Amino acid sequence: MMMKKRMFKAAIFSMLLMFGYLSQSVAQTTNTEQKIDEIIAQLTLEEKVAMCHAQSKFTSAGVPRLGIPEIWMSDGPHGVRAEINWDNWGYAGWTNDSITAFPALTCLAATFNEGLSKEYGVAVGEEARYRKKDILLGPGVNIYRTPLNGRNFEYMGEDPYLASQMVVPYIHGVQSNGVAACVKHFVANNQEKWRGHINVELSDRALHEIYLPAFKSAVDGGVWSMMSAYNQIRGQYCSHNEYLVNDILKGDWGFDGVYLTDWGAAHNTKQSALYGLDIEMGTGTNGLTYSEKNHYENYYLAGPFKEILNSGEVSEDVLDDKVRRILRLMYRTNMAENKPLGSINTTAHHDVARRVAQEGIVLLQNDDDFFPISDKKMKIAVIGENATRMMTIGGGSSELKVEYEVSPLQGIKERFKNAEIVYTMGYASGPSQYGQVIPSTLDADSLKNEAIKAVKGADVVLFFGGLNKSHHQDCEDGDRLTYDLPFGQPELIETLAATNPNIGVVLIGGNAVATPWSDKVKTVMQGWYLGTETGHAMADVISGDVTPSGKLPFTFPKKLEDNAAHHYGEMSYPGDNVNEEYKEGILVGYRWHDTKKITPAYAFGHGLSYTKFKLENIASDKKSYDINDTIEVTCSLDNIGDVEGAEVVQVYVGKHKSAVERATKELKAYQKVTLKASSSEKLNLSIPISSLKYYNENKSDWELEEGEYYIYVGNASDNISKKIKVSITSRVN
Amino acid sequence: MMMKKRMFKAAIFSMLLMFGYLSQSVAQTTNTEQKIDEIIAQLTLEEKVAMCHAQSKFTSAGVPRLGIPEIWMSDGPHGVRAEINWDNWGYAGWTNDSITAFPALTCLAATFNEGLSKEYGVAVGEEARYRKKDILLGPGVNIYRTPLNGRNFEYMGEDPYLASQMVVPYIHGVQSNGVAACVKHFVANNQEKWRGHINVELSDRALHEIYLPAFKSAVDGGVWSMMSAYNQIRGQYCSHNEYLVNDILKGDWGFDGVYLTDWGAAHNTKQSALYGLDIEMGTGTNGLTYSEKNHYENYYLAGPFKEILNSGEVSEDVLDDKVRRILRLMYRTNMAENKPLGSINTTAHHDVARRVAQEGIVLLQNDDDFFPISDKKMKIAVIGENATRMMTIGGGSSELKVEYEVSPLQGIKERFKNAEIVYTMGYASGPSQYGQVIPSTLDADSLKNEAIKAVKGADVVLFFGGLNKSHHQDCEDGDRLTYDLPFGQPELIETLAATNPNIGVVLIGGNAVATPWSDKVKTVMQGWYLGTETGHAMADVISGDVTPSGKLPFTFPKKLEDNAAHHYGEMSYPGDNVNEEYKEGILVGYRWHDTKKITPAYAFGHGLSYTKFKLENIASDKKSYDINDTIEVTCSLDNIGDVEGAEVVQVYVGKHKSAVERATKELKAYQKVTLKASSSEKLNLSIPISSLKYYNENKSDWELEEGEYYIYVGNASDNISKKIKVSITSRVN
Repeated sequence: MMMKKRMFKAAIFSMLLMFGYLSQSVAQTTNTEQKIDEIIAQLTLEEKVAMCHAQSKFTSAGVPRLGIPEIWMSDGPHGVRAEINWDNWGYAGWTNDSITAFPALTCLAATFNEGLSKEYGVAVGEEARYRKKDILLGPGVNIYRTPLNGRNFEYMGEDPYLASQMVVPYIHGVQSNGVAACVKHFVANNQEKWRGHINVELSDRALHEIYLPAFKSAVDGGVWSMMSAYNQIRGQYCSHNEYLVNDILKGDWGFDGVYLTDWGAAHNTKQSALYGLDIEMGTGTNGLTYSEKNHYENYYLAGPFKEILNSGEVSEDVLDDKVRRILRLMYRTNMAENKPLGSINTTAHHDVARRVAQEGIVLLQNDDDFFPISDKKMKIAVIGENATRMMTIGGGSSELKVEYEVSPLQGIKERFKNAEIVYTMGYASGPSQYGQVIPSTLDADSLKNEAIKAVKGADVVLFFGGLNKSHHQDCEDGDRLTYDLPFGQPELIETLAATNPNIGVVLIGGNAVATPWSDKVKTVMQGWYLGTETGHAMADVISGDVTPSGKLPFTFPKKLEDNAAHHYGEMSYPGDNVNEEYKEGILVGYRWHDTKKITPAYAFGHGLSYTKFKLENIASDKKSYDINDTIEVTCSLDNIGDVEGAEVVQVYVGKHKSAVERATKELKAYQKVTLKASSSEKLNLSIPISSLKYYNENKSDWELEEGEYYIYVGNASDNISKKIKVSITSRVN
Repeated sequence: MMMKKRMFKAAIFSMLLMFGYLSQSVAQTTNTEQKIDEIIAQLTLEEKVAMCHAQSKFTSAGVPRLGIPEIWMSDGPHGVRAEINWDNWGYAGWTNDSITAFPALTCLAATFNEGLSKEYGVAVGEEARYRKKDILLGPGVNIYRTPLNGRNFEYMGEDPYLASQMVVPYIHGVQSNGVAACVKHFVANNQEKWRGHINVELSDRALHEIYLPAFKSAVDGGVWSMMSAYNQIRGQYCSHNEYLVNDILKGDWGFDGVYLTDWGAAHNTKQSALYGLDIEMGTGTNGLTYSEKNHYENYYLAGPFKEILNSGEVSEDVLDDKVRRILRLMYRTNMAENKPLGSINTTAHHDVARRVAQEGIVLLQNDDDFFPISDKKMKIAVIGENATRMMTIGGGSSELKVEYEVSPLQGIKERFKNAEIVYTMGYASGPSQYGQVIPSTLDADSLKNEAIKAVKGADVVLFFGGLNKSHHQDCEDGDRLTYDLPFGQPELIETLAATNPNIGVVLIGGNAVATPWSDKVKTVMQGWYLGTETGHAMADVISGDVTPSGKLPFTFPKKLEDNAAHHYGEMSYPGDNVNEEYKEGILVGYRWHDTKKITPAYAFGHGLSYTKFKLENIASDKKSYDINDTIEVTCSLDNIGDVEGAEVVQVYVGKHKSAVERATKELKAYQKVTLKASSSEKLNLSIPISSLKYYNENKSDWELEEGEYYIYVGNASDNISKKIKVSITSRVN
């Protein structure tokens, strides 16, 4: 690993405290299913229905008389949210709920490091278990379709394969603590604007090839719960969507866990009953009392559900299936034997947060080797609100109450002891406030003038800008209004660069932004939302203590119109407030840019290093393959630079002359390798031929197209070292 | 058992859900102590100090980074209190905290049934475990010294032997759930008036023979925690009292558990450090911020404790001992392997509550066999506010939020289907409100006139009166102001009895009251606070479905001055606001009445039945005993009546011509036996000679006095069937 060794005593000790938590064997599973049947036979209809809906903001009922526990949930996915009041959205004011904030999932995806994803999951799961949570509401794997989506920062980028690979270790990590992960939001909640009602129309191919794979991977990986999207698909809300939930999720995929709503995403009792919803949460029934005693009785899956069960309109078997799933989740979580105790704010957790941040930071541009910056006697001007702004506040449900959060400025100050650091805001956006924008009362001109003054005569200028967690930025329940950097930053960057051209820009955010000013600055670094260890990780990379190795999990188009979702006009995004059509189909992200030959500002998979790598001897094991084969791609990777570093070798595959529409290439394998200076490693990357199938809409099934394919091997989607032609037959050789 | 068989399916099933929770073996204990030492070695001073004081109203801190959990506590002892806000006394408004209210501990004591005590403990412990509580703040075993004490209802009566016997099974029951019982209030918190500061002076004999035995029995029985009294003993607060805690509790008795304050009972940092306080709770630091961040840092065992530890004034070993005890409690509770899940409001819990109530109800007087009342076509007039008043509301910290509470009137109505039931309040006391009295706005005269009208022409009159849970009644933080029945009840009873002499009185309360009107009414029944199943249990007894078998655990004096604590004037009760002297010494309760030949209204151990018992063939196995012997008393008990019933055979012992002051007799054994009509049973009751020792103040040790003793065998302290003289030597024969 690239980082310095740390003390793991506390972590190991913490592990000793766990009473050897074991995964279920097949025998146990059978036994559990029997026990579940025995329990269901004891339950009244009222008790069963009570398990299918919320009893408070974040809990659903158990069966107290039988010792069946409640389910306690917490928002994730970047840490365990602070305690919320029982029955309203206010924070409960507890003092024991300050936790570790881990980097946002976009950053995790950018690491291309599945081992780190596992460590992340273990750590956040430990924090959830200590906080007595049974379901952690994350991770999110909605595909990045447009840079305007306010919630992209919570997801794993634009590529279904990358998200599919990265999501599973996270789930395994969380669930090793007896805490259910809850993959969200199923499916096509790809924008926040009108999310509560917009009806998404998309092709079967787009659905199956782009938007579903990460969810399927989570199910195959054994996730214990899944959360619905708010929106509709093909005219039916995702919370109770016959096709998505009954046919695909619980049918084709065999999901045996709990399907729950996003908060307030249920809309119909009979559909909730019949189309696979197991637990209804967050329905807005305040003031709409079904009975005077308990407004939760007004939930679709509460009083009204009982009515259609009692009338016989819906069979009790439907209810029993929901309860069986809920009890199964309980046997995996709060009813599991010898659950671990969990822990919060351990050295190990802080260390995981820092390493994910270090590996996720993406060096987009680095002219004249501006980075790394060595610590010497000089003047560093740090400019930008984001150098000091707390980014764990705001953003919606992923907001966190941290034990601490090291700001970029603090990290720089700690690391650069010999330099004189001057700081000024440069611009001001106003406080983070969920659901509203509070304009700054600070005068923009005077902030700018202060900044100009600060950068004059500085040896180095570091601008920390980007987005923040306010409404219409990276924040739930609204989309960005523009692709440009907000708060006057583009003009400010150009002004500062004109004053002092030795300037680097660190972008904080979870989305691509327009970078028309990039040729005026030396360096552009994508800094994400990094949580607790933000400033440390940034200083680690800026100083060169850590060589950057992150790769973009989504494309930075030059302008918004270059993005596929925005190419086809308003019906494609954001829709007409009723419907929306994903007119770009399968050509999302780099698939669009590649295929349409639209050069992006920064491509998917792109990310620079402080060292140099050479990728050579690239070959496939064979020239032709049949359907049961696996393509083995071999290559050698040399670190020919001066420092240790990590590189992500990426293998894409494209069909030559396809009978159906195809992206030029699609990511099918990757491998991250850390190499000391002047060392090399031989790599082997495997691509099962079955993974090259496309979804045949006429047959409603996956199908392998015979013929010639190209294998592209490189270190970015736009930097391919070699292209190999192979042929594939669907015969078994 | 006397009661009808019930369905236990749910209960048995609930047991199956518990994962075979096992008690610790010796090997495990050694292992645990090693683990504790290893943990302590890892902890910082700050972390250890944080474990020694509250972090919220009802929790103390764990060590999050090491996965050491917090301790969550709840008020008991009659049920698990509703959730309280994190940092103020308001209720949190949760909707999952409605529980089973069990009868008050005075009622449990009146059952003289240790098996029921165990069942009570198991049940309330299961409710605590389901509610995720680690310490249940109960049971209370302060000795009943004066009927004015506002909190007597929470304790187990006036006799140290009875309380000692009854408390242990309760503890075992609670702790079998991985929930610590917390015996309280150590010691001599025998009145609520001035409890926060009054200094109690009492003789060593009174302390050791009367007030300490039930606590010692709890320790010998393995209780895991103990709560301090508010008051001072011999000039030092009980929360940090060198003699009580260091010398006796943790020294002589070898208590290995956690000693915690009552809420706000700590007063001094150095004494808290040195004199055995392990966890400080509820100190009133609001507004007295030690640091601005956290007012809990102002606790005696918080910031100020750190100061004297850091200065070296107090050794860190002192801190480590506290932490060792806290961790030991954790290994027994929240860190125990395979804790059960608990349950709430089970059929079994409701059944335990009902059976304790049935067996605890005491029939004090029953002229002309007024009770039982058969269900026939007639008019029953039910009078009295207490026939409908919720008695789980009010009373202080033992207040409960019940799933349901069957009122006496409701119970009567359900049972007497053939009768016409008319009800009127008769008197009104105003709402229960902790800490204040809200006078009723109802007009007393009109209420009385309504009642007179109702009883005229009734075949049977049932008056439900007594005390309630308002301030200056049976309520924490204040004593009763008078021994008489409040709210004009004495006059009302006399008026109603004059109107219709076929009247029975049911007294609800936890204290003795003056009953000068008793010869005007047929029947007097002590009905306690019975919790959830109040009305059912009362109807069970009134109807004769259950034959009463409860025995008074304290004396009803005819007038207050007949009580020992009130005999010696104000310095003996309530003191002069600074000091108080227990001038009656060891002569508490029936010991006083017997010795001073003051006839009570109703004696300790008294309680009538609907059937008749004959106690005969009473004999001791020998005439003389040595110090290692056990006296075996045999007798035969015949049920010579018409119905099944239970009798409590009581064995008292008194020294003949003692060299030191002695009570005429003291309870040393009892046995409760249920017999069908016309059946009999031979009994054997054992009295170890060692239990006859008195506390020799000159030697500060227990001593056996040689000579002649009388053994008294009967069914009440004032109804002795036979007196046997034996001689005892301190030689070993």
